[in-house]
Amino acid sequence: MNSTPNKIITIEIAYYQVPLEEVLSDAKHGDHTHFELILCKIGCEDGTEGVGYTYTGGKGGRAIYSLLNDEFKPLLLNQDASQIENIWDEMEWHLHYVGRGGLVSFAMSAVDIALWDVRCKRLNKPLWQVAGGANNTTACYAGGIDLNFSQEKLLNNIQGYLDNGYKAVKIKVGKENHREDVERVAAVRELIGSDVVFMVDANYSLSVEQAIVFGKAIEQYNITWFEEPTIPDDYLGFAKIADNINIPLAMGENLHTLHEFGYAVAQAKLGFLQPDASNIGGITGFLRVAKMAEENNLPLCSHGMHELHVSLLASQAHAGYLEVHSFPIDQYTKHPLQLDENGRAIAPDVAGTGVVFDDALLDQYLIKHS
Amino acid sequence: MNSTPNKIITIEIAYYQVPLEEVLSDAKHGDHTHFELILCKIGCEDGTEGVGYTYTGGKGGRAIYSLLNDEFKPLLLNQDASQIENIWDEMEWHLHYVGRGGLVSFAMSAVDIALWDVRCKRLNKPLWQVAGGANNTTACYAGGIDLNFSQEKLLNNIQGYLDNGYKAVKIKVGKENHREDVERVAAVRELIGSDVVFMVDANYSLSVEQAIVFGKAIEQYNITWFEEPTIPDDYLGFAKIADNINIPLAMGENLHTLHEFGYAVAQAKLGFLQPDASNIGGITGFLRVAKMAEENNLPLCSHGMHELHVSLLASQAHAGYLEVHSFPIDQYTKHPLQLDENGRAIAPDVAGTGVVFDDALLDQYLIKHS
Ligand SMILES: [Mg+2]
Ligand SMILES: [Mg+2]
Repeated sequence: MNSTPNKIITIEIAYYQVPLEEVLSDAKHGDHTHFELILCKIGCEDGTEGVGYTYTGGKGGRAIYSLLNDEFKPLLLNQDASQIENIWDEMEWHLHYVGRGGLVSFAMSAVDIALWDVRCKRLNKPLWQVAGGANNTTACYAGGIDLNFSQEKLLNNIQGYLDNGYKAVKIKVGKENHREDVERVAAVRELIGSDVVFMVDANYSLSVEQAIVFGKAIEQYNITWFEEPTIPDDYLGFAKIADNINIPLAMGENLHTLHEFGYAVAQAKLGFLQPDASNIGGITGFLRVAKMAEENNLPLCSHGMHELHVSLLASQAHAGYLEVHSFPIDQYTKHPLQLDENGRAIAPDVAGTGVVFDDALLDQYLIKHS
Repeated sequence: MNSTPNKIITIEIAYYQVPLEEVLSDAKHGDHTHFELILCKIGCEDGTEGVGYTYTGGKGGRAIYSLLNDEFKPLLLNQDASQIENIWDEMEWHLHYVGRGGLVSFAMSAVDIALWDVRCKRLNKPLWQVAGGANNTTACYAGGIDLNFSQEKLLNNIQGYLDNGYKAVKIKVGKENHREDVERVAAVRELIGSDVVFMVDANYSLSVEQAIVFGKAIEQYNITWFEEPTIPDDYLGFAKIADNINIPLAMGENLHTLHEFGYAVAQAKLGFLQPDASNIGGITGFLRVAKMAEENNLPLCSHGMHELHVSLLASQAHAGYLEVHSFPIDQYTKHPLQLDENGRAIAPDVAGTGVVFDDALLDQYLIKHS
């Protein structure tokens, strides 16, 4: 009999609801009280184990669990774990009728990240080397989910970021009264001084016209990007905003297929791309978007799960800024994010993706597993 | 205390796997051995009960069950069942981060159809009247899922459709050898004569170039439409095919948001629109696409669940052809589709959507419920 060290022989799925220390709000998703974490552990015949995961802001996680447990597990058992790109395509076609983005992209992500963890462990290399190797650090920013914070609390929060070594910060905008947003932007710029990089994020809460008015009003504060001014589906609306204000636009967290990224790049006149490996089909999907960014001369940024993206951005020569997200996933891992003295995030130097969950810490939030 | 007859007080979800009598195949989804049926029953304070549902070709149904049971049930309990359009928007935003099409659209559909059943029952009118009232019959065609049938079996199957009174038929294409497809098209046209309407469906298995070559080869057989020649995301690819062949194009079963339909209408140079109420957000979503079709002078057709779509197409003055689908959902209902002597499908004349499941028949296929 042939030896088949790569054969997938076990797949375990676990679903957690992890409470947030305080309620976090943005303009379109309302209050976040917890995040959902869905883990996928893949075991191979030779004993190599890979861990993948995805997360949500609190809703849909049990459907992702079902996709992983009921649909992908039977598809993947006995397959060759090294055939990552083939498996990616196979997952996409397997659930194409109910997929093409949405929840299926989240479930694919968890599988794909686990397979990359296996790949890196077999090579005995860290992800930043395997994924590209350009660097082992990346520029980053602290991304607040702070629309519900009073102005005083907002400024204290930003000061905390600066105290922790961040050289770039982002705040939420999209208050009912836009003048309040402008005041908050002005107050933050005054606090951080002229050298700190500063972005804003409306979570697609504005109309195209509102976004233009607001964009013009904050141009004077040297804003590096205006993220998701309007709904992600309105590529031409983005282009119209871009044509009318002097702030580059950014999006990506709500683009869950390569086709959507293709349309956005072709039509939306973006300045930055922000894929999220947890919902664009894992590392395989993220790197395909990275290639698109390179071909279109756009800096590659990220959304969420900084504990993983730090390695992916570091690996790419055209990296922009890593989002250090407010969902504290990395409090539950063994390598929480570290900044160097220049405020750059450091990719973990361990074999694998570098994301190693602390099961003992997470266990209290386990809802179901298989 | 106020009387609140419309208040939603119960929501029951049931998940079935219904076997097909024989294996059915198309070019992209492979073999179908069963379909999944997910029912959503909504009960109001005054005792009115609405039944909604969605279906899949065999995969993803348990994730839809989870969305209905874990996400929408808590959202909808105690809401006013008559506020259908508000509830539709609320469902969309509630799961927007993991949604925008895909599985969320399927789950929304089941809820929305149940709410329309309640609406029609309260009005004591059949759906065809409530949804528009243009007519109570519609042109229709028998849609085979027959790519795996030998040519002899294919022709016998088509003859069966004619014997049952159909005046229009569709076959699958997308064989590895395209000449075989051309031969099958020629043989079917010879069998049915020149008066029967004839369509083909490639289930997006072809490249743009292949579709043009094949389209030119079958133009001589008077094909009413060429359905899904290439992947649904490639709107401009559709347009290129349309520019190069003399057969109108059709799609819709894989467009699961109004934005996707908007792009398709604007860019894909379609001749027919084919929404499916089971995956475009139910009757509310279907009627929004119907409006788009009307505004763009496109005949409105349908995909799947003919037992429901018969009423929706009949209700619209710009109806094209109802697909009478090969998944026999209506074998499990109390009003299986009827044709009149002209081969037109007749909308049921009962209060409600007209889709009344026979629980005794379905029970043997129940996998789980809540
Ligand atoms: Mg954002
Ligand atoms: Mg079709």
